[in-house]
Amino acid sequence: MSDDTKAQGSNQMWGGRFATGPAAIMEEINASIDYDRKLYAQDIEGSIAHATMLADTHIISAEDRDKIVHGLNTIRSEIEQGEFAFSRKLEDIHMNVEARLSELIGPAAGRLHTARSRNDQVALDFRMWVRAEAEKTAAALKRLIEVLLARAEEHAKTVMPGFTHLQTAQPVTFGHHCMAYVEMFGRDLSRMRDCLERMDECPLGAAALAGTGFPIDRHQTAQALGFSGPTRNSIDTVSDRDFALEFMAAASICATHLSRMAEEIVIWSTPQFGFVTLSDAFSTGSSIMPQKKNPDAAELVRAKTGRINGNLVALLTVMKGLPLAYSKDMQEDKEAVFDAAESLELALAAMTGMVADMTVNARAMKKAAGSGYSTATDLADWLVRELGIPFREAHHVTGRAVALAEEKGVGLEKLSLSDLQSIHDGITEDVFSVLTVEKSAASRKSFGGTAPQEVRRQVRYWKKKLAKPA
Amino acid sequence: MSDDTKAQGSNQMWGGRFATGPAAIMEEINASIDYDRKLYAQDIEGSIAHATMLADTHIISAEDRDKIVHGLNTIRSEIEQGEFAFSRKLEDIHMNVEARLSELIGPAAGRLHTARSRNDQVALDFRMWVRAEAEKTAAALKRLIEVLLARAEEHAKTVMPGFTHLQTAQPVTFGHHCMAYVEMFGRDLSRMRDCLERMDECPLGAAALAGTGFPIDRHQTAQALGFSGPTRNSIDTVSDRDFALEFMAAASICATHLSRMAEEIVIWSTPQFGFVTLSDAFSTGSSIMPQKKNPDAAELVRAKTGRINGNLVALLTVMKGLPLAYSKDMQEDKEAVFDAAESLELALAAMTGMVADMTVNARAMKKAAGSGYSTATDLADWLVRELGIPFREAHHVTGRAVALAEEKGVGLEKLSLSDLQSIHDGITEDVFSVLTVEKSAASRKSFGGTAPQEVRRQVRYWKKKLAKPA
Amino acid sequence: MSDDTKAQGSNQMWGGRFATGPAAIMEEINASIDYDRKLYAQDIEGSIAHATMLADTHIISAEDRDKIVHGLNTIRSEIEQGEFAFSRKLEDIHMNVEARLSELIGPAAGRLHTARSRNDQVALDFRMWVRAEAEKTAAALKRLIEVLLARAEEHAKTVMPGFTHLQTAQPVTFGHHCMAYVEMFGRDLSRMRDCLERMDECPLGAAALAGTGFPIDRHQTAQALGFSGPTRNSIDTVSDRDFALEFMAAASICATHLSRMAEEIVIWSTPQFGFVTLSDAFSTGSSIMPQKKNPDAAELVRAKTGRINGNLVALLTVMKGLPLAYSKDMQEDKEAVFDAAESLELALAAMTGMVADMTVNARAMKKAAGSGYSTATDLADWLVRELGIPFREAHHVTGRAVALAEEKGVGLEKLSLSDLQSIHDGITEDVFSVLTVEKSAASRKSFGGTAPQEVRRQVRYWKKKLAKPA
Amino acid sequence: MSDDTKAQGSNQMWGGRFATGPAAIMEEINASIDYDRKLYAQDIEGSIAHATMLADTHIISAEDRDKIVHGLNTIRSEIEQGEFAFSRKLEDIHMNVEARLSELIGPAAGRLHTARSRNDQVALDFRMWVRAEAEKTAAALKRLIEVLLARAEEHAKTVMPGFTHLQTAQPVTFGHHCMAYVEMFGRDLSRMRDCLERMDECPLGAAALAGTGFPIDRHQTAQALGFSGPTRNSIDTVSDRDFALEFMAAASICATHLSRMAEEIVIWSTPQFGFVTLSDAFSTGSSIMPQKKNPDAAELVRAKTGRINGNLVALLTVMKGLPLAYSKDMQEDKEAVFDAAESLELALAAMTGMVADMTVNARAMKKAAGSGYSTATDLADWLVRELGIPFREAHHVTGRAVALAEEKGVGLEKLSLSDLQSIHDGITEDVFSVLTVEKSAASRKSFGGTAPQEVRRQVRYWKKKLAKPA
Repeated sequence: MSDDTKAQGSNQMWGGRFATGPAAIMEEINASIDYDRKLYAQDIEGSIAHATMLADTHIISAEDRDKIVHGLNTIRSEIEQGEFAFSRKLEDIHMNVEARLSELIGPAAGRLHTARSRNDQVALDFRMWVRAEAEKTAAALKRLIEVLLARAEEHAKTVMPGFTHLQTAQPVTFGHHCMAYVEMFGRDLSRMRDCLERMDECPLGAAALAGTGFPIDRHQTAQALGFSGPTRNSIDTVSDRDFALEFMAAASICATHLSRMAEEIVIWSTPQFGFVTLSDAFSTGSSIMPQKKNPDAAELVRAKTGRINGNLVALLTVMKGLPLAYSKDMQEDKEAVFDAAESLELALAAMTGMVADMTVNARAMKKAAGSGYSTATDLADWLVRELGIPFREAHHVTGRAVALAEEKGVGLEKLSLSDLQSIHDGITEDVFSVLTVEKSAASRKSFGGTAPQEVRRQVRYWKKKLAKPA
Repeated sequence: MSDDTKAQGSNQMWGGRFATGPAAIMEEINASIDYDRKLYAQDIEGSIAHATMLADTHIISAEDRDKIVHGLNTIRSEIEQGEFAFSRKLEDIHMNVEARLSELIGPAAGRLHTARSRNDQVALDFRMWVRAEAEKTAAALKRLIEVLLARAEEHAKTVMPGFTHLQTAQPVTFGHHCMAYVEMFGRDLSRMRDCLERMDECPLGAAALAGTGFPIDRHQTAQALGFSGPTRNSIDTVSDRDFALEFMAAASICATHLSRMAEEIVIWSTPQFGFVTLSDAFSTGSSIMPQKKNPDAAELVRAKTGRINGNLVALLTVMKGLPLAYSKDMQEDKEAVFDAAESLELALAAMTGMVADMTVNARAMKKAAGSGYSTATDLADWLVRELGIPFREAHHVTGRAVALAEEKGVGLEKLSLSDLQSIHDGITEDVFSVLTVEKSAASRKSFGGTAPQEVRRQVRYWKKKLAKPA
Repeated sequence: MSDDTKAQGSNQMWGGRFATGPAAIMEEINASIDYDRKLYAQDIEGSIAHATMLADTHIISAEDRDKIVHGLNTIRSEIEQGEFAFSRKLEDIHMNVEARLSELIGPAAGRLHTARSRNDQVALDFRMWVRAEAEKTAAALKRLIEVLLARAEEHAKTVMPGFTHLQTAQPVTFGHHCMAYVEMFGRDLSRMRDCLERMDECPLGAAALAGTGFPIDRHQTAQALGFSGPTRNSIDTVSDRDFALEFMAAASICATHLSRMAEEIVIWSTPQFGFVTLSDAFSTGSSIMPQKKNPDAAELVRAKTGRINGNLVALLTVMKGLPLAYSKDMQEDKEAVFDAAESLELALAAMTGMVADMTVNARAMKKAAGSGYSTATDLADWLVRELGIPFREAHHVTGRAVALAEEKGVGLEKLSLSDLQSIHDGITEDVFSVLTVEKSAASRKSFGGTAPQEVRRQVRYWKKKLAKPA
Repeated sequence: MSDDTKAQGSNQMWGGRFATGPAAIMEEINASIDYDRKLYAQDIEGSIAHATMLADTHIISAEDRDKIVHGLNTIRSEIEQGEFAFSRKLEDIHMNVEARLSELIGPAAGRLHTARSRNDQVALDFRMWVRAEAEKTAAALKRLIEVLLARAEEHAKTVMPGFTHLQTAQPVTFGHHCMAYVEMFGRDLSRMRDCLERMDECPLGAAALAGTGFPIDRHQTAQALGFSGPTRNSIDTVSDRDFALEFMAAASICATHLSRMAEEIVIWSTPQFGFVTLSDAFSTGSSIMPQKKNPDAAELVRAKTGRINGNLVALLTVMKGLPLAYSKDMQEDKEAVFDAAESLELALAAMTGMVADMTVNARAMKKAAGSGYSTATDLADWLVRELGIPFREAHHVTGRAVALAEEKGVGLEKLSLSDLQSIHDGITEDVFSVLTVEKSAASRKSFGGTAPQEVRRQVRYWKKKLAKPA
């Protein structure tokens, strides 16, 4: 027996669905056509641009170009009409399209791959897919922001409790609360745009990894495919996927924001809070408890954070420690990004719908805002501002006032002036101008504060900002 | 206008694929039938057990039971023959089956859901799915271990370099290296079995969350469905998914082991190392470079770690901070586990195939084992053992011997006795008995060491262990 | 200039804290003594066991053993009294101890490292640390379970709303709710024990990676250090860290359970719910709003899930794709595990304290339990059970009853018999026996159900189980 | 006994390090001073800006401002000289500083907190810390890029194998390979700058969550602290931490790039590859195997990816589902970011040092580049370009040529013209102009290709780009 050996493959070795052995396993682990067929439009668009450039640079003939372009257009319509027979044997979308092209136009098909490789081809297709998805996400974020702006404007004066630790802290307005999310989703939008700008370089022409000796014009294909220019290093181009990682990281941060709003909607929808009522479209009922409305859509939006974060971890893990240039590991990039993008798109749409459709129970909000001595800070601030008492001391005076109100079982604004003067004799009638929840909210006029006029100012700022081209 | 308001849904609000508005979004985010149809067999098996128990406890009639069982069997065969029309409107597998049952057998279908809820039903279906998958994983691990044992036995004497920091450290045998993975996958197997044992409690009968007032017999259904007994707390039963988390955590650890072996195969397959040659079945060639064999299967196995870890993070994130009992967020449990389980099964099958089929290049291994003065430690140990020199001092002597060999451009075993005696005069002829790679390996006879006899002993241990019933 | 080149290190290259150049960077990235000093006790205990065995097997003399053991005991007390000067130059705990031993006892110190390597030494120290930590975690879980059992017994009859989707679904008892967590933490405890059992193999004697030619007795050291036996493969022993991964995975699952209970405490502590009041010890107040109690401890327990999951991801990522045997990457194993273990221990202690100390507001719970027609399912079940109506039809009847009650603004139990008979004429006086929240809860006597007698049964089960030795 | 109960705290309940009970646990879980003391400089700088603004807007007197500023400066120097006694009882850096200020200047200290809260204070301190860290990271990236540019320029012509699947594919230059990393780190740098731009809004003045009624000037404090302006929504300001998440996501992507380069260095340092030799400063030796150089620094850089990804997951998990505004969970933001930032800074410094110091073994690279028929693609391209053969057909011709060369045991460039003509009779002498590795590399002159002139062009591009102000 030779030194160099190969084990005898036992017939019993392959269990379960792999009973047919190595070939079946390899086909299943290796073929990507089940999911990369999503890239068909990008693949064909890229090939058309490439063929056109090859003809313009006289690398192929105009005649061949015409055959190729015609064939590719035929394939596109076959796919879109469900008449294309995808084959796992042909592994991926690139080979499926190329094989069909060969059937359709013969030898000319063999010229399309000149000065190109599957490595730059897939880098292009995938980048174009992520680009389109990032643009859709940006548009969806814009729609959500617009809905929030509408609700914020409508509720610029609606008072609700501002919470810290989920305990009532100070009165705020619901409009102001909505605008907090406008800021978050606004930053998410700007992250998407930065991501788009950074990926705005065309991979085509990097070839296998080293570029090519053919006199191609990468600036032409870049322009034809809507990129500002070509990438600057061919090894990097076929090796890296940071445009996908960045998109997924931005998606995770956005999903985190969505999960927070979803959590609030779940809590606000309980009978105990009762701040909002979801529309029937976004909740489910119970055939037996007609009053019960389950905030399913909000729960599902909250849960999507899980898979979006998971997808980010997945691709970060795949890319960790991979030597350059292309490794087959990178085939795992697509499903993670597809799933993250589609989950985020769905979550954004559901949140936009919920916010647009939900009923805001202003009475319940106001009632809750007034509980828990939420204007205590206003009293303290009044003491500082009007009587010149140091802040820390004003806190102690206020503490005593709250204790007195609690003892009497009333709100701070229901204490009499003499009650208050018994605690600090400098207090005047004017103090009552800050002790109701509306007055408290209205008084916080600092830039970015909760006062209705400030909320409206920020609504105007955002409307103007959104109106500008990106 | 009322205080309590609902924003006007703009026609322009729904973009892209959601142009049709709330109903489309809600259906898409809410319906699980696209993936939970995988649970059809478990769903039907659980319903049959439930109906049987309901009849045995006289909660329903024997006649109704017979109709239900017959109807469910019909549905199962409809699904298996591809004749079942799944409906997204009916949301999930449970409602799809129930609706069809109602068509088939009329009012009796309405009795099946007595003393049951979708909450315990899905907990059962999903647990049975995870149980089956954990069993398949255990079987696949066993197959991989068996293949490794065969290769280890075959190569109990094949010397290769033992690496630390990917630098040659000491000679080991390839069999010993294989047995290291046997230990890892052996622990993975035992983790799967612990996981199976812990999930061996039947959820059925927990009902919505509080149990039921019907005189059901949970021990009967547990037994019928192959569980040791029922779960002990109904709220826990419908709320928790730790059996899935534990399965996924065990999958992640196993995937980590697979990724390490896959990385080694990738490195060993380079022309620079040349330790193994993958079979054609598990590699891909290049039409232009016939000598090139890309270790695609190994790369893909390595990459699967990413999605398996990602799935674990996804479900951990979903479950974080969810109040009891059932929340809709938990609908996100399934796809993560399905994907992790299927990815692991595939990775195990591919690794089993690669290991079984690959050619081991014993000559290349041996040559590499002899480079880099890999028996230097053996010299040091000889000095300690035979001459009684303290270990740290023996290291210095050895360092000088290596320096001399390097100067002369030879291996340690090619130095003359007088060369060695010039460094330490106590050295005798006997030292050459430890300076070749075979002798070095053979000398490490400590329990678990790399000596061929020790490797064979551990192979016997594992064969005996695997032969025992789990 | 030679082909083989080395770039000129510019003085300007090192910025910020690394201005002093390579040496400073390398020391900072390479030295582990800042954190692995935690392992001093394990390191010394392991060395004593090793020296004792070396003497017993006549590899070193009894005299040297005595010196070594005495020296090591001296070092231990120096460290414990804060008199030991740890040095970064000596990199890690092993070299710090060995260098000091050399100072204390001279050449004999050089014999301690015979038949041992830092690779098996660190594998031992770290495993012993994880083992101790897993034991502490198990003990802490047991304490938490005991506190929950006490509260469950006390509140076996206290009715509260059982939630699904955070909406009131059916009445349950607070005791039953506590017992749900007993089940979860009980599984966490059994996971810790499985993990302990699986790591119960002693790494010492694996040496660098290949075992050793010295006639060591690995069974003796294993026994001396409290292990059932030695590990079976030396390469695996120095290469793998799955015992740490498994511990961290179990910690993540346990932290997830804790996060759910913490979330409930945060929600229950709001004025809107008011189900529990945390003790002053586990909440913080506000100097200005004396009625405000922030559930800080619960929030922090909830948040610890983040870092514990993060640590798991960290080590999974580190280990991904590492070739065997030891790589320096593995030095990153320790801080992740230290942090996860300490965070979990702290979270368990805080949760135990919160649960033990919190005031349960039974009146608020009961009031909430009665809202939202939470006994509607009981009515439906009564119709099925007493009148033989199919379940789905009974749901519709119940729906009409709830609608009527809602119209009249009363609970279901306040409808008159004639009201109910107007909906279904088979309804009798007996129906009122199931319409109050207490009766509803009491009726759910199925195994694991919420009926007080069932809760008490499970409390007894767990007390007995915990009383048994692990 | 009352309905509302509190369990009896058993003395036995507190185990291990918490034997002293609730107070000890709460202090340990609640106090952040052990790590947030890192923020002292930011805290003091923020307070000085705040006090100055309060005086300028006449909210406090100039005299009080002077006292406050003087006191704060004193505290800063006490801290910097190690004379400040940090107290865990005072929880955090803010209270530690404020308490000391009160000791130093008496009642005036109580005025500093006017129109401010710990919520906006910590948001400011932390953002300033992250800002400084992002700037340091950007500077470190710039240094690494500069070192890579220097090596790329030096090795613009040094030929090495370009790998795909870690198999030799086509010759590239080492300079080109370095430039691939320049592109990656260049994008990392631009991500850091985007992150810095997005966080360039000052939180101070958001107060507890609602803004304030004091007539503060947020634009003034923003300017004083180096921000472009104030944040626009006070609730968002104290609630969100996406600037930290974005920084950590950028850090994870950058760490992924570093891990790839580190992996390459580990592989290239093996005797089997031998492409580079690390300097002694960045590797460790073995006292016994003097020729062994362990690439410890590269392994540790590779491993840092783990903890950086883990930290990202940690904070994403913490923030998931948190209702607005401030929750105590957010206290967990700091350690994750501190650790990620410091790990990245260290990894960048180590990589910069390794790249600058390592010896490039050009001969070994060139030799490897020539193996494996790496110029086969060049032959195929020549056939297409010169003879007009379709690409796919040219592949087949090339395959036959490689087979012939293999049979003869020579490289492609050593085949005779007649050998080549026997395969395709159109082949001419000119074909030899593309068959050596240097000529192959030199021919790939497409934009971004591996030709030396192209590499030099991209070096010039980057030098110019880096010279511009950010």
